[in-house]
Amino acid sequence: MNTRADNELRPTTIEPIASAAAGHVMISQGQTRVICTASLSTDLPPWMLPRDGGPATRGWVTAEYAMMPGSTPQRKRRGGDSRGTEIQRLIARVLRAAVDLERMPGVLITCDCDVLVADGGTRTASITGAYVALAQALLTARHKGMIENDPIDTPVAAVSVGIVDGRPVLDLDYPLDVNAEVDMNVAMNGRGEYVEVQGTAEGAAFCRDRLNALLDLAEAGIGRLLEVQEGAIQNAKFKMQNAE
Amino acid sequence: MNTRADNELRPTTIEPIASAAAGHVMISQGQTRVICTASLSTDLPPWMLPRDGGPATRGWVTAEYAMMPGSTPQRKRRGGDSRGTEIQRLIARVLRAAVDLERMPGVLITCDCDVLVADGGTRTASITGAYVALAQALLTARHKGMIENDPIDTPVAAVSVGIVDGRPVLDLDYPLDVNAEVDMNVAMNGRGEYVEVQGTAEGAAFCRDRLNALLDLAEAGIGRLLEVQEGAIQNAKFKMQNAE
Amino acid sequence: MNTRADNELRPTTIEPIASAAAGHVMISQGQTRVICTASLSTDLPPWMLPRDGGPATRGWVTAEYAMMPGSTPQRKRRGGDSRGTEIQRLIARVLRAAVDLERMPGVLITCDCDVLVADGGTRTASITGAYVALAQALLTARHKGMIENDPIDTPVAAVSVGIVDGRPVLDLDYPLDVNAEVDMNVAMNGRGEYVEVQGTAEGAAFCRDRLNALLDLAEAGIGRLLEVQEGAIQNAKFKMQNAE
Amino acid sequence: MNTRADNELRPTTIEPIASAAAGHVMISQGQTRVICTASLSTDLPPWMLPRDGGPATRGWVTAEYAMMPGSTPQRKRRGGDSRGTEIQRLIARVLRAAVDLERMPGVLITCDCDVLVADGGTRTASITGAYVALAQALLTARHKGMIENDPIDTPVAAVSVGIVDGRPVLDLDYPLDVNAEVDMNVAMNGRGEYVEVQGTAEGAAFCRDRLNALLDLAEAGIGRLLEVQEGAIQNAKFKMQNAE
Amino acid sequence: MNTRADNELRPTTIEPIASAAAGHVMISQGQTRVICTASLSTDLPPWMLPRDGGPATRGWVTAEYAMMPGSTPQRKRRGGDSRGTEIQRLIARVLRAAVDLERMPGVLITCDCDVLVADGGTRTASITGAYVALAQALLTARHKGMIENDPIDTPVAAVSVGIVDGRPVLDLDYPLDVNAEVDMNVAMNGRGEYVEVQGTAEGAAFCRDRLNALLDLAEAGIGRLLEVQEGAIQNAKFKMQNAE
Amino acid sequence: MNTRADNELRPTTIEPIASAAAGHVMISQGQTRVICTASLSTDLPPWMLPRDGGPATRGWVTAEYAMMPGSTPQRKRRGGDSRGTEIQRLIARVLRAAVDLERMPGVLITCDCDVLVADGGTRTASITGAYVALAQALLTARHKGMIENDPIDTPVAAVSVGIVDGRPVLDLDYPLDVNAEVDMNVAMNGRGEYVEVQGTAEGAAFCRDRLNALLDLAEAGIGRLLEVQEGAIQNAKFKMQNAE
Repeated sequence: MNTRADNELRPTTIEPIASAAAGHVMISQGQTRVICTASLSTDLPPWMLPRDGGPATRGWVTAEYAMMPGSTPQRKRRGGDSRGTEIQRLIARVLRAAVDLERMPGVLITCDCDVLVADGGTRTASITGAYVALAQALLTARHKGMIENDPIDTPVAAVSVGIVDGRPVLDLDYPLDVNAEVDMNVAMNGRGEYVEVQGTAEGAAFCRDRLNALLDLAEAGIGRLLEVQEGAIQNAKFKMQNAE
Repeated sequence: MNTRADNELRPTTIEPIASAAAGHVMISQGQTRVICTASLSTDLPPWMLPRDGGPATRGWVTAEYAMMPGSTPQRKRRGGDSRGTEIQRLIARVLRAAVDLERMPGVLITCDCDVLVADGGTRTASITGAYVALAQALLTARHKGMIENDPIDTPVAAVSVGIVDGRPVLDLDYPLDVNAEVDMNVAMNGRGEYVEVQGTAEGAAFCRDRLNALLDLAEAGIGRLLEVQEGAIQNAKFKMQNAE
Repeated sequence: MNTRADNELRPTTIEPIASAAAGHVMISQGQTRVICTASLSTDLPPWMLPRDGGPATRGWVTAEYAMMPGSTPQRKRRGGDSRGTEIQRLIARVLRAAVDLERMPGVLITCDCDVLVADGGTRTASITGAYVALAQALLTARHKGMIENDPIDTPVAAVSVGIVDGRPVLDLDYPLDVNAEVDMNVAMNGRGEYVEVQGTAEGAAFCRDRLNALLDLAEAGIGRLLEVQEGAIQNAKFKMQNAE
Repeated sequence: MNTRADNELRPTTIEPIASAAAGHVMISQGQTRVICTASLSTDLPPWMLPRDGGPATRGWVTAEYAMMPGSTPQRKRRGGDSRGTEIQRLIARVLRAAVDLERMPGVLITCDCDVLVADGGTRTASITGAYVALAQALLTARHKGMIENDPIDTPVAAVSVGIVDGRPVLDLDYPLDVNAEVDMNVAMNGRGEYVEVQGTAEGAAFCRDRLNALLDLAEAGIGRLLEVQEGAIQNAKFKMQNAE
Repeated sequence: MNTRADNELRPTTIEPIASAAAGHVMISQGQTRVICTASLSTDLPPWMLPRDGGPATRGWVTAEYAMMPGSTPQRKRRGGDSRGTEIQRLIARVLRAAVDLERMPGVLITCDCDVLVADGGTRTASITGAYVALAQALLTARHKGMIENDPIDTPVAAVSVGIVDGRPVLDLDYPLDVNAEVDMNVAMNGRGEYVEVQGTAEGAAFCRDRLNALLDLAEAGIGRLLEVQEGAIQNAKFKMQNAE
Repeated sequence: MNTRADNELRPTTIEPIASAAAGHVMISQGQTRVICTASLSTDLPPWMLPRDGGPATRGWVTAEYAMMPGSTPQRKRRGGDSRGTEIQRLIARVLRAAVDLERMPGVLITCDCDVLVADGGTRTASITGAYVALAQALLTARHKGMIENDPIDTPVAAVSVGIVDGRPVLDLDYPLDVNAEVDMNVAMNGRGEYVEVQGTAEGAAFCRDRLNALLDLAEAGIGRLLEVQEGAIQNAKFKMQNAE
């Protein structure tokens, strides 16, 4: 059934989806679907406000991640759990690595990643999709005059890799993920640098050579995801200009 | 901007959406969008199980309702509130009026209504959409041999009506809803009977004549929604048969 | 045992009860007993305060509803549930329909309805009793000089009606309520207008004629409840004047 | 205003109150009013059930304490706090000292103490009143054949004492309690023995002589409370016999 | 195994322990071990702040108590329970009786008592140990110039006593505590006055003579604990001076 | 002040600490101190029990992590947060990589890591210390006859590495951690394989060469930590044998 090559990404698209938020896309990666919205606000968290009551000199990007009840064959109960908490901390960290927070003073962007269908790789698809929603929201913020300059420093995208049946494989779907001995999530930026590397030995620990093989696979996959993101952002820009 | 006649529904469609659940549609009513999924299970709530340990003689239908964070221009915080609790109790009650629970022994169906865009009428759109997801899930249950007979007794649909600027109006969008003096949600079945009538004087109390005018409007609107539902269910049946 | 006529109210009294709150009555309707107190405060909820820091131009009325542990033969566990949440939202909406909030600027009244004995109709008895406690608390507020004019616009009262064994019945006690095919709660004001209509098909949906019969019964019952309220308020005024 | 002698109890009565619970009284001690109900059940807490699945050899008595929202001039928010938790643990311990749990196998009695008006001494009034409700519930349990013998070993009652303006005083109301340097709650049984002694130096620590003077006052007050309890129980027995 | 005399304390030491808090000791009493830290802060609880926005005229001392998971042979689940809540309220009350809060304006000290090994008497050991941590923290506060004068009025210490096999016993370890018919916790100050007396009949109520015998035992034990505290404080002062 | 070489561990010891748990050590790494206990139980989590009611064929290892209130100069509030949740998931995953769960059927070991002093590297010190407590608890389990064979497959230890001022540094204390551009936690087993690699770009993303340099540092540091663990376990075995 899975006839992909080990170093091949699943078919991936990033499309607009109806929303009231400033940024809003649905990323499809194989069967996995994540609705990513980016909401714009000026209500910074209290700890970011200067003590002297003056205007904020920085902005902030945060993220939330949730699985929708229909995302799994056995209904997923609503409400956060420790896995979700860990994932949304990861998403937010990576997104913040894409922007210069000082170039978006006083602006809060909350990226919500709601998994419509979970077939593996939801946390990395969330990062890849949420970056596009974030970029759209920042375009809107500039358009509204909330910020002067483009705060984006470099795009970020993420992919999962793993060792399955002893072979390094790119972009694990759920059946592969369940059988993986090693599971690694890698986030990189547009300059080919690492933003986050999280490798876990599920079954058997792994040696340095295997780690290197996984990093090579991830790098190639992320390169292709950055292209998909770029296309989606150009489309959004085009629509925004035509809407004026 | 709102050039609908007072007795006209907003454009309404019910389309399939990707999901791992047995039933899965997105209902669009004007700008409002609700993702409705229906998950199939045999884990009945403990209070439904016979005390003697024998097999359950009835099934159950329940519902959950949530607004997604990007559903409103100002981001909607996740997590239940009292309004949501009240709405999901309403949805579940109406859906249960559509089925004969004794014809689905041991089967639990949970209908999840997640509002993607909130532009008024989300609770009634949830009912109308969730009924279709429920019907799909019951088809699947029969297809899998979990139940023998069709438990559906009659379709159900719902619509909001209200008094705006002194005039009775059908299917309030958000700007109309905010200005309504009276807000009423009506759910009816395929036999033209009431399943639920909830009328609230937001600004001014209303007399019997106005109540009657609102009920007339609702009846006409629900008639048209039942047709949209029927079309969506026929499409689903058609796909299911071709998939065999 | 139940020898009432179908269109007869259960015996209903509204008496003072010891309390430290400004308004305080116990309503008895058949076996049902609800302790209704109305507490006076100037701590408006934050969202009601003007953004400019100036004085509030309106007041607020809110309500809480709870069943006391000994209110049912099987002890009722403390702590809110979704049913209670829905009921207290209803009570508060109806009470607010009785007053002109702009005539009570800066004043918050919280009406607490604690069910001492639950034998059906606790939510409508709560409304009927809490209106009296609210009126007492407003008298106290004027007496203390917290408000200048009487904010009451019209009294409000509520009653339950239902279809039992195929017949429309007024003021359901618990045994009737359990057997009702349709259960409807109606709140009306002193001008004979509807404030809230909530009809639910528990067993079988209902046609328009039945709805009309239920509304007729409710109107007659509420008329009599308004008289009981008026007597209780006159008593309270009389005591207050004599206490001076 | 307070013209009681330092060694005089406030006027105290224990009267029946409407309830669906097996035991149900209202105790009035000065302005303080507590509704005490005792609910009968056979649902023992899981930790009391024998591991071998056999029948329970003991019963249990537990208690809950809450202040009703209208019990204080400034409305009391609902929901437990640490003070309430501590009080209900105390009430339950003292009530259990009144009974032989082995003479009520498989029976759970939950005593609920809901403060209607709080004017000092609510925890000790709760104990004194709840004992009567407990005794009523045990009468009912015997009457229903749930237990064979009377589990009551000795009555229990409680009172507060304190040092105010340097003088030992019995049964503190709220104004006295606020000014007390030492606050002590004493619970004793019908044999003149201590069940609980809780003395706290609010302002100044106290020497042995003062402790003894407080214990003397408490002993005399509890003696009178035991008589009030006895009268209330005899009334309840009389009604129960006449009801047969 | 327990060869102590009935009026003998278990071996008791109070030693420094590594910490980032201003005060930090471990008290060992027999096998029982409690880590007591006292953290210094100027964030007074909101209810202590003067309404006029001026500087606080008083300080505050509060306490928290928790059993560490490894403190009992069967692992102790984390998270507060009602027993812990009651204990920490007791600890805080007794510690506040040691200081003049007006001599520490604007200073908050939080004493944390974490039980490393629980072998009976953890609440009284917590009081005895926490007083030393509190005294250290106040030394630090003076050293830092946060307060001018020594706020300590008198030391406080506490011990448990009980009736076991009919005999009054000092300082109950867990096996003794389990078998005690009466359990009493006594806190006294350096002037031989009572700060708190909490006696509970676990099995059998107790007469006045027994109460007096227990108070005599407690007084002698607390006298010895005050000496251990004094030694630990002198050591801390000595180290602090040498560190300058 | 920090005169360590960049590739030098902080002074590290693992010592026994008083506890009622089967395994119990305190690890000190520089100023950081973590109390690690391992509690033995046969209460497996419900999801591990075979559906057929037969005996469990596997055991389980879980972990909890908490910072004690006095662990930081500004008092750390009790109660879990998302950071703690993420850390305890990491600790548990790494510990499970050390054992063959099928060689400890029916046994649950809960490792608690309570941070006494937090000066950087608390999560990796928790892993290193908890492994020793786990090993002790397994020795006890064998000693008690709860398991037959040694379930340990390989030891595990962890260390943090990071890039500070552009240089790769081993074992970051708090001041170094705050200034680190990249922060990486590495866990390895006794065969030199990776169990977990978690690298995060705090400030600037990092290239492959830097990643490799960090991995080299971690490998050397973990080698030395495995020796410290081995010494602590030999001591524990020695004591256990002499205690027999």
